Amino acid sequence: MSAERAEHAVRRIGILGGGQLGRMAIEESRKYLAHIEVLTPDYPSPASELADVVHVGKLDDYESVLEFAQDVDVVSYEIEGVSVEALRELERRGKIVIPSAGVLAGIRDKYAQKELLVAAEIPTARAVLVRADKGEDVADAASSLGGFPVVQKARSGGYDGRGVAVLDGAASGKMIRAPSFVEEFVDFERELAVVVARAPGGATVAYPCVEMVFDERANMCDSVLAPARISDAQREEAERISLAAVEAICRAAESSGSPAAGSAGVFAVELFLARSGDVLVNEIAPRPHNSGHFSIEACETSQFDQYVRLLLGLPLGSARLQSPAMMVNIFGGPDCGVGEPEYLGLEEALAVPGVSIHLYGKREARPFRKLGHLTALGATPEEAAARAEAARAHIKIRCR
Amino acid sequence: MSAERAEHAVRRIGILGGGQLGRMAIEESRKYLAHIEVLTPDYPSPASELADVVHVGKLDDYESVLEFAQDVDVVSYEIEGVSVEALRELERRGKIVIPSAGVLAGIRDKYAQKELLVAAEIPTARAVLVRADKGEDVADAASSLGGFPVVQKARSGGYDGRGVAVLDGAASGKMIRAPSFVEEFVDFERELAVVVARAPGGATVAYPCVEMVFDERANMCDSVLAPARISDAQREEAERISLAAVEAICRAAESSGSPAAGSAGVFAVELFLARSGDVLVNEIAPRPHNSGHFSIEACETSQFDQYVRLLLGLPLGSARLQSPAMMVNIFGGPDCGVGEPEYLGLEEALAVPGVSIHLYGKREARPFRKLGHLTALGATPEEAAARAEAARAHIKIRCR
Repeated sequence: MSAERAEHAVRRIGILGGGQLGRMAIEESRKYLAHIEVLTPDYPSPASELADVVHVGKLDDYESVLEFAQDVDVVSYEIEGVSVEALRELERRGKIVIPSAGVLAGIRDKYAQKELLVAAEIPTARAVLVRADKGEDVADAASSLGGFPVVQKARSGGYDGRGVAVLDGAASGKMIRAPSFVEEFVDFERELAVVVARAPGGATVAYPCVEMVFDERANMCDSVLAPARISDAQREEAERISLAAVEAICRAAESSGSPAAGSAGVFAVELFLARSGDVLVNEIAPRPHNSGHFSIEACETSQFDQYVRLLLGLPLGSARLQSPAMMVNIFGGPDCGVGEPEYLGLEEALAVPGVSIHLYGKREARPFRKLGHLTALGATPEEAAARAEAARAHIKIRCR
Repeated sequence: MSAERAEHAVRRIGILGGGQLGRMAIEESRKYLAHIEVLTPDYPSPASELADVVHVGKLDDYESVLEFAQDVDVVSYEIEGVSVEALRELERRGKIVIPSAGVLAGIRDKYAQKELLVAAEIPTARAVLVRADKGEDVADAASSLGGFPVVQKARSGGYDGRGVAVLDGAASGKMIRAPSFVEEFVDFERELAVVVARAPGGATVAYPCVEMVFDERANMCDSVLAPARISDAQREEAERISLAAVEAICRAAESSGSPAAGSAGVFAVELFLARSGDVLVNEIAPRPHNSGHFSIEACETSQFDQYVRLLLGLPLGSARLQSPAMMVNIFGGPDCGVGEPEYLGLEEALAVPGVSIHLYGKREARPFRKLGHLTALGATPEEAAARAEAARAHIKIRCR
């Protein structure tokens, strides 16, 4: 057996971002003796508390990213807002970037992402670019799709409900004043998600399709039920098009010169189950995702374990669901204030059977900011959901 | 809800010992934002790499333990060889020690442990103290049990097969030259184990009964199959007497003045399934144990998660088995030499379905020293075992 086989043990990983996704990846990486450095704009931050080496700097700053990457072998990111130009330069210098700069570029600009999906014949809502940011430009684009209602999306920077607006007419105060596009409003029955892991060699694993429940109060994905309450045919279709979408984006990046070694990563594919019964891709994130947190307790290999495996060049693990599960985000309500969070009711929540809690260690709470999550396992999705709701009801965030 | 409910988040934990048990507890503790300090005789060591604060000092040194405990709220240990006198003094000063000094004293002296089990009418092999360490003293003790063969055990300090000898006669070269006792040789069909978690309030959880497979070559517990291949009645009996044994030891400690707050911990109860069909307690460890490692992947709450929960004053979680599993220790063979370990074949091992690997980060390998473990899940115990064996066959330790 060659010495390279043991190389992963000393491969140094650099992750851009200091949030909870990096933190949970580090938690899962210890069993591989992985060395993980992070570049974080905020210090302290959830990931910086656990990283082996912490660099403080801007993620979208070319020099800061290049400097950070000097001492690591593999560069990744847990947030989309990083310098793509720096990632491209790192690839030119022979550094492994996962997912590659080309993959990120193809996903981060949501209109480019849409064009890639359409070119690959992945079912998705039709979309049209908005020429400028005036109301009449939006109306023009909407009329070319058959008129309002439409969904207007910022081309980049959207997150947790920001950068997305459902418009009933050109006069809506919700209109986004930034480079954007509009897409057909999908009358959906459920929002679904499939996490896909792709290893550098091309192997892929799809996690079971889950159902995302949005909290209108918080305007964010608030809970996730695994598996989704859909038919087997819908489930298969969701998994099929999610794998195809990730494949299309990786292939497109390679076609425009991105290294195949970077056609890898953990991807979250958000989908709509339309009332018509069709399954459509909504959008894709090139990183571990809130919709995959349930996998820590419920699957044989969690999305974070998978992420660390592929960064280390190790084979992907099984994504098999061991138990139905419901994940619920933990955040302060509208009146929690701003300040150091205090977590009340964790004892009562953990006393609910099958419940696990993950706190992220954020130093500042504010209304609706995610501070952690809980996952409840159950014999059935209904039992998991009931347990998750019971546990959630006990938890309250108070600021000191 | 009172402020005390949030107190766990700032409870500081101190663990005596720097090995893999502490390391894996720390890995599982991050989700609770736990603060863990370790006292380690060796630096670096598996737990010191991940601890929040590292103190280097002797575990059996009274002053060193007292000094270590100054800044923490709860003191625990991941190895038996710590200063019981220091723990008692800490209890006098009002520090929470888990398990209490009295519980440790009742377990660590294996003859005291045996007497407690007998007093509580827990089924266990009969034992007799050896007066001194001459062959004739052992022969006297053996004859009072009906003669050889007997098992001679050192009263303390035994670990991984050390301190235990099966004697066929008084002239055996294997005889232990230390304070010891002999017990009846149990003709057993299988060796079993049940991990029991007990929270300070008295709540207990028993993990599913597992089967321990000893490697004669290594003279150590080498693999663990969950669940054990025994009848339901045997399984129930194993769990019943394991819970009773832990209860008896905690009650005895309290009777002799130990604080009830320390009648807690993760305990591993090793058992024999005799050829007669009887289930007997062999011995008990007052800490997470090799026989519970399978729980990381296979149970709803791992033994390490459970350990951290009870140290933090949080409720115990469910120990339900999600999938059959086999755990196999990873160590160098007789010819691996001594030196910095290199892990060969991990890629191939992780490519076996359902396999997870945990490395401990030990800086020095030597023949049969545990460096990590792997766990394979499967639809049946047989499938889990086949996968574990397939994965194990790929791994080789080489010293640099």
